[in-house]
Amino acid sequence: MKLEGTYRRSIQRTADGRGALILDQRKLPWTVEWVELRTAEQAAIAIRDMWTRGAPLIGATAAYGLALALAEDPDGLDAAHAMLLATRPTAVNLRWALDAVADAVRALPAEERAEAAFAKADAICDEDVALCRAIGEHGLALLRDLHARHPDRPVNILTHCNAGWLATVDYGTATAPIYLAHEAGIPVHVWVDETRPRNQGALLTAFELAGHGVPHTVIADNAGGLLMMRGQVDAVIVGTDRVTANGDVCNKIGTYLKALAAHDSGVPFYVALPYTTFDPHTLSGADVPIEERDPGELTSLSDGEASVRVTRSQAYNPAFDVTPARLVTGYITESGVKDRIG
Amino acid sequence: MKLEGTYRRSIQRTADGRGALILDQRKLPWTVEWVELRTAEQAAIAIRDMWTRGAPLIGATAAYGLALALAEDPDGLDAAHAMLLATRPTAVNLRWALDAVADAVRALPAEERAEAAFAKADAICDEDVALCRAIGEHGLALLRDLHARHPDRPVNILTHCNAGWLATVDYGTATAPIYLAHEAGIPVHVWVDETRPRNQGALLTAFELAGHGVPHTVIADNAGGLLMMRGQVDAVIVGTDRVTANGDVCNKIGTYLKALAAHDSGVPFYVALPYTTFDPHTLSGADVPIEERDPGELTSLSDGEASVRVTRSQAYNPAFDVTPARLVTGYITESGVKDRIG
Repeated sequence: MKLEGTYRRSIQRTADGRGALILDQRKLPWTVEWVELRTAEQAAIAIRDMWTRGAPLIGATAAYGLALALAEDPDGLDAAHAMLLATRPTAVNLRWALDAVADAVRALPAEERAEAAFAKADAICDEDVALCRAIGEHGLALLRDLHARHPDRPVNILTHCNAGWLATVDYGTATAPIYLAHEAGIPVHVWVDETRPRNQGALLTAFELAGHGVPHTVIADNAGGLLMMRGQVDAVIVGTDRVTANGDVCNKIGTYLKALAAHDSGVPFYVALPYTTFDPHTLSGADVPIEERDPGELTSLSDGEASVRVTRSQAYNPAFDVTPARLVTGYITESGVKDRIG
Repeated sequence: MKLEGTYRRSIQRTADGRGALILDQRKLPWTVEWVELRTAEQAAIAIRDMWTRGAPLIGATAAYGLALALAEDPDGLDAAHAMLLATRPTAVNLRWALDAVADAVRALPAEERAEAAFAKADAICDEDVALCRAIGEHGLALLRDLHARHPDRPVNILTHCNAGWLATVDYGTATAPIYLAHEAGIPVHVWVDETRPRNQGALLTAFELAGHGVPHTVIADNAGGLLMMRGQVDAVIVGTDRVTANGDVCNKIGTYLKALAAHDSGVPFYVALPYTTFDPHTLSGADVPIEERDPGELTSLSDGEASVRVTRSQAYNPAFDVTPARLVTGYITESGVKDRIG
């Protein structure tokens, strides 16, 4: 999407074609810094230290990392694969992207491997963009309908966390319908949940919407219920880390509370996802282990320049919750909007 | 309750009896600073600039402020009343307390007025303590029952914002059952919502529970839904700014989301209030105007030493929401626990 007036992807090849360019997302929105990855080791650091984040973008970064490794040593495939895989061992997309590149080059003569790996990494990016764009087009139809009901005012969308351009290669998942509606001339306004404790909404979603010129307002995570009760939200759209066989939605902590409020006020609650995020092997959300992260994410807050204390007491920091399928109005996928999944 | 090992009220007369001692709550929990109010002007500043807060505590502070004015000028009743009333013009308790002191002294000879005003202010404080203690005793019975169901572990209470000792003269409203249970030897553990954007939970509730030695853990406002779904909350207890004729509850923004989650998971949701907070003249929550506060409360955060930016985007900051009566399990009042009010 647009950033500082120019269309960009969140990852792209450098001008000379021999590297990958990413944003250092740890510094957003305060500093916009593009970083060139020139070696596999640099790609590994970018993933491990969360310069880059979001499952699709991690996969794309790892794919370019493997290409960079092969450019240096065409026989270093297995070592580089293992090194990159170890950066975020639980990320499904990471392994999938590394395997895809490895499969594409393993049988080739040594001198052709790097180029083929770059081409495969490009293809992985293009596929992700196509997936997100398709999600966006199906979601656009929903927003068009919502706008037709109240043509005199913007469509108000509430989102939680960042399932945007910055988490994918372009468009995002939850944000794709919003960007396409904005481009189609449908007036949209986004309520952006702050998303404590890591504040991905206030920092990243607000930043990318601002970059593309989409009207938006940051709210405390506490505020969405009131806004829905007062009719100030036309739809909630969120992304997801995993949808289980029964349609339960694992997503950033707090998503469940918004789904409850949407249900209570008759506001449609949509989950945007590519089918790769659907996990048919896990029966329900109750079977998904919930990551518990460092309480320090809650007990202090930094903006890169300064740091403040939030509490002196101990804290507990579960990172995800489960929204039961019964609260989901629809799943916006690349193949259409479904009222159930599986 | 206890603070640094000593029982204290949040407001009390100075040792010489000619002033009032309050905490400067703006600095909590980082600095514990007791401030002596020696003049009506100082009391007015303390209320207006929010050194002191919470409806009952504001009323008590204003009452002592009027006594201080009369000690200086026994004929200055009306001017001091007006000056103190103007500090927070919409606070109902403020006017009530000022009128109570004025009514008690107006007919007295000039030389008796100050002493009578101090005595009335003391009485207002004692009445508030008695109200909160009665709320606590009725709530204690609920916690005792919850403990009997799971005698092998602490009773887990979730609370939102600060309806504690620091908002009243002692015990608090939502916290009174918790303090009394703790003193009665019932093991309790409190999940303290951070309470964005002003963080009264992380700052004030956590501080006062720590001072009294009550086990507690701060969580993001987003986390309560997951905890309730997983059975980690036995009851939610919150305070309230106003309960309308139909039982709707106006309280700190985000309360409604916790009530929805409690209802969805079968967790009892209690509202603790003295009957003075019940407003029979307003039909329902829909008739209560919602205060919209400075977006700056959300867009930056300070701990007294440093300040950090939270977002670069614009923000919207409604301060209260409405929890419909249908989501309330019970109202814990000084005259008992009621399943409906009015």
